[in-house]
Amino acid sequence: MNLNKDGFVKSSLFHISSLVRGVAMSKSAGCCKRFLHYAFDYETPKTLVIPSLGVGFVFRFTQFLVVMYVVGYVCVVQKAYQDTDTVISTVTTKVKGFAFTNTSDTEPRFWDVADYIIPPQSDHSFFVLTNMVVTPKQVQSHCPELPSPSTTCVDDCNCVEGRSDPRGNGIQTGLCENYSTTARTCEVLSWCPLEIDTKLPEHALLVAAENFTVLIKNSITYPKFNFHRRNILPHVNSSYLKRCEFSRLTDPHCPIFRLKHIVSEAGEDFQDMAVKGGVLGILIDWSCDLDWWAGECLPKYSFRRLDNKHPVNNVAPGYNFRFAKYYKTADGEETRTLIKAYGIRFDVIVFGTAGRFSIVPTIVNLGAALSFLSLVPVVADWFLVTCSRKRDLYSRHKTTHLTEDADSASVSMGTTYGTQ
Amino acid sequence: MNLNKDGFVKSSLFHISSLVRGVAMSKSAGCCKRFLHYAFDYETPKTLVIPSLGVGFVFRFTQFLVVMYVVGYVCVVQKAYQDTDTVISTVTTKVKGFAFTNTSDTEPRFWDVADYIIPPQSDHSFFVLTNMVVTPKQVQSHCPELPSPSTTCVDDCNCVEGRSDPRGNGIQTGLCENYSTTARTCEVLSWCPLEIDTKLPEHALLVAAENFTVLIKNSITYPKFNFHRRNILPHVNSSYLKRCEFSRLTDPHCPIFRLKHIVSEAGEDFQDMAVKGGVLGILIDWSCDLDWWAGECLPKYSFRRLDNKHPVNNVAPGYNFRFAKYYKTADGEETRTLIKAYGIRFDVIVFGTAGRFSIVPTIVNLGAALSFLSLVPVVADWFLVTCSRKRDLYSRHKTTHLTEDADSASVSMGTTYGTQ
Amino acid sequence: MNLNKDGFVKSSLFHISSLVRGVAMSKSAGCCKRFLHYAFDYETPKTLVIPSLGVGFVFRFTQFLVVMYVVGYVCVVQKAYQDTDTVISTVTTKVKGFAFTNTSDTEPRFWDVADYIIPPQSDHSFFVLTNMVVTPKQVQSHCPELPSPSTTCVDDCNCVEGRSDPRGNGIQTGLCENYSTTARTCEVLSWCPLEIDTKLPEHALLVAAENFTVLIKNSITYPKFNFHRRNILPHVNSSYLKRCEFSRLTDPHCPIFRLKHIVSEAGEDFQDMAVKGGVLGILIDWSCDLDWWAGECLPKYSFRRLDNKHPVNNVAPGYNFRFAKYYKTADGEETRTLIKAYGIRFDVIVFGTAGRFSIVPTIVNLGAALSFLSLVPVVADWFLVTCSRKRDLYSRHKTTHLTEDADSASVSMGTTYGTQ
Repeated sequence: MNLNKDGFVKSSLFHISSLVRGVAMSKSAGCCKRFLHYAFDYETPKTLVIPSLGVGFVFRFTQFLVVMYVVGYVCVVQKAYQDTDTVISTVTTKVKGFAFTNTSDTEPRFWDVADYIIPPQSDHSFFVLTNMVVTPKQVQSHCPELPSPSTTCVDDCNCVEGRSDPRGNGIQTGLCENYSTTARTCEVLSWCPLEIDTKLPEHALLVAAENFTVLIKNSITYPKFNFHRRNILPHVNSSYLKRCEFSRLTDPHCPIFRLKHIVSEAGEDFQDMAVKGGVLGILIDWSCDLDWWAGECLPKYSFRRLDNKHPVNNVAPGYNFRFAKYYKTADGEETRTLIKAYGIRFDVIVFGTAGRFSIVPTIVNLGAALSFLSLVPVVADWFLVTCSRKRDLYSRHKTTHLTEDADSASVSMGTTYGTQ
Repeated sequence: MNLNKDGFVKSSLFHISSLVRGVAMSKSAGCCKRFLHYAFDYETPKTLVIPSLGVGFVFRFTQFLVVMYVVGYVCVVQKAYQDTDTVISTVTTKVKGFAFTNTSDTEPRFWDVADYIIPPQSDHSFFVLTNMVVTPKQVQSHCPELPSPSTTCVDDCNCVEGRSDPRGNGIQTGLCENYSTTARTCEVLSWCPLEIDTKLPEHALLVAAENFTVLIKNSITYPKFNFHRRNILPHVNSSYLKRCEFSRLTDPHCPIFRLKHIVSEAGEDFQDMAVKGGVLGILIDWSCDLDWWAGECLPKYSFRRLDNKHPVNNVAPGYNFRFAKYYKTADGEETRTLIKAYGIRFDVIVFGTAGRFSIVPTIVNLGAALSFLSLVPVVADWFLVTCSRKRDLYSRHKTTHLTEDADSASVSMGTTYGTQ
Repeated sequence: MNLNKDGFVKSSLFHISSLVRGVAMSKSAGCCKRFLHYAFDYETPKTLVIPSLGVGFVFRFTQFLVVMYVVGYVCVVQKAYQDTDTVISTVTTKVKGFAFTNTSDTEPRFWDVADYIIPPQSDHSFFVLTNMVVTPKQVQSHCPELPSPSTTCVDDCNCVEGRSDPRGNGIQTGLCENYSTTARTCEVLSWCPLEIDTKLPEHALLVAAENFTVLIKNSITYPKFNFHRRNILPHVNSSYLKRCEFSRLTDPHCPIFRLKHIVSEAGEDFQDMAVKGGVLGILIDWSCDLDWWAGECLPKYSFRRLDNKHPVNNVAPGYNFRFAKYYKTADGEETRTLIKAYGIRFDVIVFGTAGRFSIVPTIVNLGAALSFLSLVPVVADWFLVTCSRKRDLYSRHKTTHLTEDADSASVSMGTTYGTQ
C-alpha cells in the first residue's frame, strides 16, 4: 500500500511543488503563496481512536444494518438501481367459431364471425354479440308510441304536434291512435314499427359463443430500451398454434383463449353475462426486468370484469348498443333492421414497466444510502458518551469545552476537563 | 438514559470481550488482536464545544430551515414520499336522443342513435353525425368530371385514357363530355354520379344533436396498488341516474352529459362546431392520493377542443370522413349511398397518477434531505470563524496548523497558533 | 467578510444573550441555563490544517471529479433536475386516393376511400384494404363442406346431424353430398356457398394502394405542464399542406404520408406486405425538453412493422379479418357478400415524455451528489495517512490513540503516539 514510489503521482506532485517553490522564490509571490495555501491546504478533523470492542461493535453493526438495508431492500426488492420505461403495444385479435340459433322467437339462423363481431375489427378490443332485440323492416313513417304514462292519450288533444319527449321514440304528430285494442297512444314520426326492447330473451341467443376462441397477437416495445417482443413466443410453431388453448397450468403461453375460460377466470358465469352483456378485461402484463441476469421477459395474462355488476349498486348494468342494417326495397324506399346488440366487449389492456440498470437512479439511491451511513457515527458517538463503560474517559478525550468567559488568548485544556 | 445496566447489550459485549481476551491469551493471537483493533477500534472526531449563543442559534436555525423544507415542501406539497402508478381504464359510452330533419335539400327524415353514431360502438370515443353531404344511387359507371382547371377539356385529345389525377375523382376514359351546357370535362370511370362536396349546408343538418345526452361509464384500475373504481359512484342509484345531468355546480358526479354542455364548457359553440365537425376531449382526471388520511378518490371532468380552430392557422379544419351504405338493385347491380359525414368526435381521455406511501421514495428523499443537514455544520463553522465575536479564540482552539517545514517528530501546538 | 458590524444579527443575538444572562441571574435559572447549554452549545470538530500540496491536490481533484460528474452527467446528459410527464394525445387520419382493379378473377371495379377504409373511422388507426377473398350471394342454406380429411364421406353414415366441427364451416345436416364429381363431403347448414379462402390472389388486388396518401392530425397535451401542441406546425399554411408530402430530408414536418413511403421506411416492401396484410406502426415521438432554454418541441416520426414476419418463426402471419355486406332480395330473403379482407393496419402510436425543471428532483439529485462530496474527505484522508510523504507526522497530529487500559483520569497524549 506504499505508494510513495509511485512514479506518476509523486513526480507530478513534486513538479507542482517545485514549481510552487520556484514561484515563491520570485518577488511578488507572497500573494500567490497565500492563494495556494487557501486552495490546497487540507483541513482534516482530528480524531481519537478508541479501542473499545463495545463501541466498535455498535459502530460496525449500525453500518452493517444500513448496508443490509441498501443491498437487501433498495436493490433486491425494489430494484431502485433501474431506469424504467412504459410499454407501447399493438394488438390484433381474431375470433373463431360459429353458432346456430333456433328459438321460438326467431327463425333458424347460422352465425359466423362476420355476423357476430361488430365492428369487424378494432384496435385493442372486440365485441362478441350474445343476445339481441331485432326489429326488422323499419321504415320512416308514423306509428303509435309504446304505451307509458307519458304517451297514453284519450284523444288528439293530449298529443302536441312536434313535441319530442326525450324518453319517447319519436316526434309526435299530434294524433292519438290505437296502439292495441286496450291502449291509445300518441302517434309519432319515427322508424316504424318501434323497437320493443323490454322483451329481452331470458337466455342468451348465442349460447354457443362460450366455445368461440380468440387468437390475440400482441407486439410490444419499450422504446427507451429498444426492446421488442411479441406474445407468440419464439419457440411456438404453427402446429402448436393450431391445437393449443390457453390454460394457466398446461399452456400458459398459448395466445388462443376460449371465451368461456376467460370469463370463468374473471370469476363470472358466461351464460349469466351473455344475457345483458358486459365488459371483460384481458390484461397482459409485460412487466420485465431487462437486466441480463434477470432471465426471460414473458407476458402474464389475467382476466377481470371491468364493468360493475354488484347487486348492491347495480345501476346501468351490462353492455349494449344499437346498430342498423340498411336495405332498399325494389321501389327505392329505405328500410332497415334495427338491432339492439347485447354482448361482451373484450378489452385487451396491455401494461407493464420494464427496468434496466441505469447509472442515474443507482447514484441517487446510493447517495441516499450514503447519507444514512453518515448517520452511523452519530449513533456510535451517542453510544460512546452515554452507554459505554468508560464514557467519562472517552468524553474527556473526545470533547473539549470552552468556558463561556474564556477571553484569555490561551486556555489550558485541563481547565475544561471537569465541566460536564 | 444510563444503559450500563442493560442486560443484553452489556452481557453480550462482555461475552465477546472475554472471548477476545481469552483468544489474546493464546500464543498466536497477536495477529488476531491486530485484526480486532483494525475492525473494531472506533475512530471519532475530537470536538470542541463552544458555548456561544450566537453560533448555536445559527446552527439550530439552519437545521430548522432544512427540516422545514423537507417537511413542508418535499412531504406536504410534492408528496415525494409516495410511490406512484398510472391509471388503466376502460370506457363505454351510450348516446341518447333523436332528431328530425326537414330542410329544402333533403327529404324529411327521422334520426335515431343507430343512424347518427358511426361506428355504432368504439373503445373510448364516439362520433356524432351533425352534418353531411349525401350522394345517393351511385353506381360503377362513367360520368364527366367535376369542372376544375385540370379537368376541363375541349375535345378528346385533352383527356388521356387511364390517367388518374390524384386531385380528380376517377380514372379518365379518354373522352371529353358535356358536364353542363357551358362546361365540358373529361369523362372518368368512377362511382357515378360524383359527389359534389362544395355544397356543404351552412347550418348543421342535425342541429338537434346539441340536446343529445351521453352516459359515460368508466372503470379504472391502479394495478400497482390493486385499486379499482368506477365513475358511477357507490351512492348513485338508478333513479338518480335516470334524471341527473352533469353540472359542475349541482351534479359534479353525474356521468350523463348533454353534448351542448360539453361543447360550451370547452369554450366552443355547438352550432358552429357542428357545421364542419371537430374533435372534443372529455378528460377524466383520476389523480388520487391513496393514503388513508387523504380522503376520497373521485373523477374530475374537464372538456377541451382537441383539434385546432384558431383563425390564425386554420389549416385542415374540422373533422369528417366518408362512408357508404351498399345496396343491391333487383337485377343484382351494386349501388351505394356515399355519405361525407361531418360531426364531432368525442374522445374520452382518462388519465391520472395515484400516489401511495412507499418506503423507497421516502428513503431517497429523506436521504437527500439528510445530505442537506450535513451542510448545516459547514454554514455554522463558517459563521463561527468569520462572524462570531470571539472568532479568533474559537479558531485557535478549533484549528491546528501544521507548518510546512514541520519535519521534527514532535511539534508543539503553540508554535502554530499565530500563523493565520 | 467581517460581519461583526452587521447590525441586525449582532443586536438580535446580543438581545437574546442579555436575556439569557438576565434569566441566569434569577434564582431558579440553573435548569434553564443547562437547557440553553444543551440546545445552543455548538459542537464542532477540531481540525488540523495540513499545508501539503499533494494532499490538497488529491482533495481538490476528487472534489472536482464529483462536481464534474454531477454537472456533466446527471444534469446535462440525464436531465435529472427535471420533473417529467407523459403525453396525452388525440389522432385523426384521412386517407386519399382511388384505385381501379381489373383482374381475371373479378369484374372491373373502381375503389375509393369509402370502399377500402374499414371501418370508415377509428381512434388512432386506419385499415387499408389491399387484397381480399370475396364470396358473393351467400344465403342461409345447405351445401356440401369443403373437402378435407375430416369432412369427406362415403354415405350419410359418416355424417352426424347437428355435429359442428370447430375446423369446419357449419353444422352438419347428416347428409353426404357430392362436392364435385370426384369428392363427396358432409352437407352443412351455413352461409352458402362456402368461402374458399385458399385461392388468395398472389398479387395484391389493390396494388395502387401504395400511392394513397394519409393526412395525420395529432394534438398532444402534457397535462402536468399545461402544454398543448399539434403536429401541423404553426408556420404551415393551407397551400403548403395541399402539395407537401413527408420526407425525412426535405419535408420532415409535413403531416401527409405516402403509404409506400411509410412501408419502405419500415424496411418492408409494400407489394409483399399487401398480399397477406400486416400491422405497421407510425410512431410519433413527442419527447420534449420544455425548459425555456431548450428550444422547440417538435414531433419525430418513425415507422416500424409491428407484426412479426421473420421466416424463422412465421406463425400466424399477416393481418386479415372477415366482414359482410348484407342485402335483401326483392322477396325479402337476406343475402350477404362475405369479404375476407387482407390489408395493412396503420397504428398511430404517440408517445413521449416531457421534462421541465422542478425543484424536487433537483433537490433529490443534488442531495445524492452532496453525499458523494462527503466521500471526498474519506479519499483524501486515506491518501494522507498512506501515500503522502510525511504520513507519519500527519497521522501523529491527526489521530490520538487511547490505550486499552487507560483507566487513569488523565492520559498524556505522548504515550499513545508510537502505537501504530
